[in-house]
Amino acid sequence: MLTIDKIIKAAETLKPVIRKTDLIHSVSLSKNNEIYLKAENLQITGSFKVRGAYVKISGLSEEQKKKGIIACSAGNHAQGVALSAQRSGIESTIFIPSTAPISKIEATKKLGANIRLVDGVYDDAYNEAVKFQKETGAEFIHPFDDEDVIAGQGTIALEIIEQLPDVEAIIVPVGGGGLISGIAYTVKMLKPDCKVYGVQAAGAGSMYNSIEKNERIELPSVSTFADGTAVKMPGEHTFEYCKKFVDKIVTVTDDEIATAILSLIESQKLIAEGAGALSVAAAIFKKLPIDGKKVVCVVSGGNIDVNILSRVINRGLLKSGRIADLTIEMLDKPGQLKEVSRIIADLGANVIRVRHNQGGENTDINECYLKITMETRNLRHLCEIKHAISSAGYKIISDK
Amino acid sequence: MLTIDKIIKAAETLKPVIRKTDLIHSVSLSKNNEIYLKAENLQITGSFKVRGAYVKISGLSEEQKKKGIIACSAGNHAQGVALSAQRSGIESTIFIPSTAPISKIEATKKLGANIRLVDGVYDDAYNEAVKFQKETGAEFIHPFDDEDVIAGQGTIALEIIEQLPDVEAIIVPVGGGGLISGIAYTVKMLKPDCKVYGVQAAGAGSMYNSIEKNERIELPSVSTFADGTAVKMPGEHTFEYCKKFVDKIVTVTDDEIATAILSLIESQKLIAEGAGALSVAAAIFKKLPIDGKKVVCVVSGGNIDVNILSRVINRGLLKSGRIADLTIEMLDKPGQLKEVSRIIADLGANVIRVRHNQGGENTDINECYLKITMETRNLRHLCEIKHAISSAGYKIISDK
Repeated sequence: MLTIDKIIKAAETLKPVIRKTDLIHSVSLSKNNEIYLKAENLQITGSFKVRGAYVKISGLSEEQKKKGIIACSAGNHAQGVALSAQRSGIESTIFIPSTAPISKIEATKKLGANIRLVDGVYDDAYNEAVKFQKETGAEFIHPFDDEDVIAGQGTIALEIIEQLPDVEAIIVPVGGGGLISGIAYTVKMLKPDCKVYGVQAAGAGSMYNSIEKNERIELPSVSTFADGTAVKMPGEHTFEYCKKFVDKIVTVTDDEIATAILSLIESQKLIAEGAGALSVAAAIFKKLPIDGKKVVCVVSGGNIDVNILSRVINRGLLKSGRIADLTIEMLDKPGQLKEVSRIIADLGANVIRVRHNQGGENTDINECYLKITMETRNLRHLCEIKHAISSAGYKIISDK
Repeated sequence: MLTIDKIIKAAETLKPVIRKTDLIHSVSLSKNNEIYLKAENLQITGSFKVRGAYVKISGLSEEQKKKGIIACSAGNHAQGVALSAQRSGIESTIFIPSTAPISKIEATKKLGANIRLVDGVYDDAYNEAVKFQKETGAEFIHPFDDEDVIAGQGTIALEIIEQLPDVEAIIVPVGGGGLISGIAYTVKMLKPDCKVYGVQAAGAGSMYNSIEKNERIELPSVSTFADGTAVKMPGEHTFEYCKKFVDKIVTVTDDEIATAILSLIESQKLIAEGAGALSVAAAIFKKLPIDGKKVVCVVSGGNIDVNILSRVINRGLLKSGRIADLTIEMLDKPGQLKEVSRIIADLGANVIRVRHNQGGENTDINECYLKITMETRNLRHLCEIKHAISSAGYKIISDK
């Protein structure tokens, strides 16, 4: 069983290894409330996972340590375990599905782990890891359903309470439930009035569903780009802790997560991964009763593949009306491009790409169309521009 | 004249307004040295500029305050002045060239400033601002060549020395020279053995050139995407401070800056703007004698337009061999696409886009070409892949 002593001891153990991450007041995210960000994306290895992994490994016997440790992960847990093993001077073998992003494999390799790439998906890598465990007797480090791991994650709550003693609510991303179990337990022991809320991706709401139905449910499949929380079934321990100590769990969509990531980039200069931005997405899209409150959003990690980041930025810009693609049908006669350009410029939008095509498949022989990509202020601004173009007699075929 | 008392008093003045930003040890940037990042991109308004602006405004007489203040800027200075005025309860009017990115104009507007958009470039906006100043008697807040402003920026050095008492070198981005003047003066008064190095963009090396020639030189033009440091001529005061207190100034190219920005995103989860990443670029590309030293890189700001950020990420990925575009000429017969795909997959690259064209302009009638975009590990990995494709008898027409 967890005890507060265990959490406090975990914090002592972690002191020489981890960063006490900054708690950042966010002026621009605060609306009718005060939002603070607990920046675990700035933790070493780029996520909170190192806390639990290091505490777990520190508690192993010398004999266990000699046999080494194993983990199965394509993401933050892999890096957390690899670094913890490196710092403890023991051997780690990490099983990674071959479909994992190259950047994450490289990052784990750099931390000194033995990497076993397994063809297939997570389950295939997991099966290989179990086989290897039986052969070697190495210790399998579970990513969430382990009380030492949970105790490690709980140290975040100690830091939050120290950094903001009058915190009234803490919003926490939820995957398997290790992070929120540690935080909720610690908070309810030390500061029971403070609310603890969980957030899951709508496409991977295993804890959300399980709490609703009051039993551990396994989802047939999960689908979200917040891959760090894509877990089919909550843990046994974590399910019990969530039932007992978490005030409410909500879900957010992938589009809401993408908007939150873009918001963190623009207004906070922070990179969050999908899982890391869940808490901020819940705050922005008003999924929780936090008006008038001092709220901490735990930004749990920042390990997002830059290729995906690039796509998220573009999607976020399109969704919020900051970039727009207009396809306009025009008669093929001189001066029309100039005229449309003038309308757009007069309204203060910035054209970044123009394609001008004669004779598209669906146009008459003397018609042509113009595809304009432009930067706009917001959806209202875009609406104004569309209206002005239509009023001038041009037909907008598409605004996608 | 500056005094240490003035800097210490400035720090007191700033206490209720600014954030004492985190000093972050960077494991992945440290090579033969210990690199720390002073994260002024996490400062309110996203850059250090608020420090100098607020100190300046606090020192104005009540009468001056009533007349309000003026600034001319398309960037960080605008936001720093706007926020400082808002917090001081006085009116600010900011002149912005109409070519400035929409995101920066919106951010300044949100901080309560009166915005005057002026058609043209910086000089046009500046002329309008001077005219307005004469009409209204409002105080013009200079972005760098002012001793109160310099004192404000110097408070960063106080924080660094407190956060890392045995710091041996500090690397600072240089534009007009306000930031480095404040830091260098403070460091040389309190800890004279600590080196202070400046970094400019190669396309805007006004201070670098002036120090070389030992006189203030005006560049005919400046060209860099580190727009926050694109200044044609150093200030009178800042030139004198740099001559006296800065150990060395170096320059970095725009490609080096882009690589530094990508590095900060991937390994530190931090967004830096071009100007903000200058210090890190100088460290990564070994422009300075910092081996074996404890070094602080000042990341001065993070206000980069997301559209530009998107381009920087792509350029950085291409430059470092992490994304590659290969165009391959093939005979138009079955099985060839499969064969090339197999070669690429076997070597562990991840294909993200394929275009297969028959009958290009420069190909024979029975030839076709394949354009493949893929994620690769690094330049060596890309080289291996190209070699394997060529060895299998395919002709790579282009790798751009």
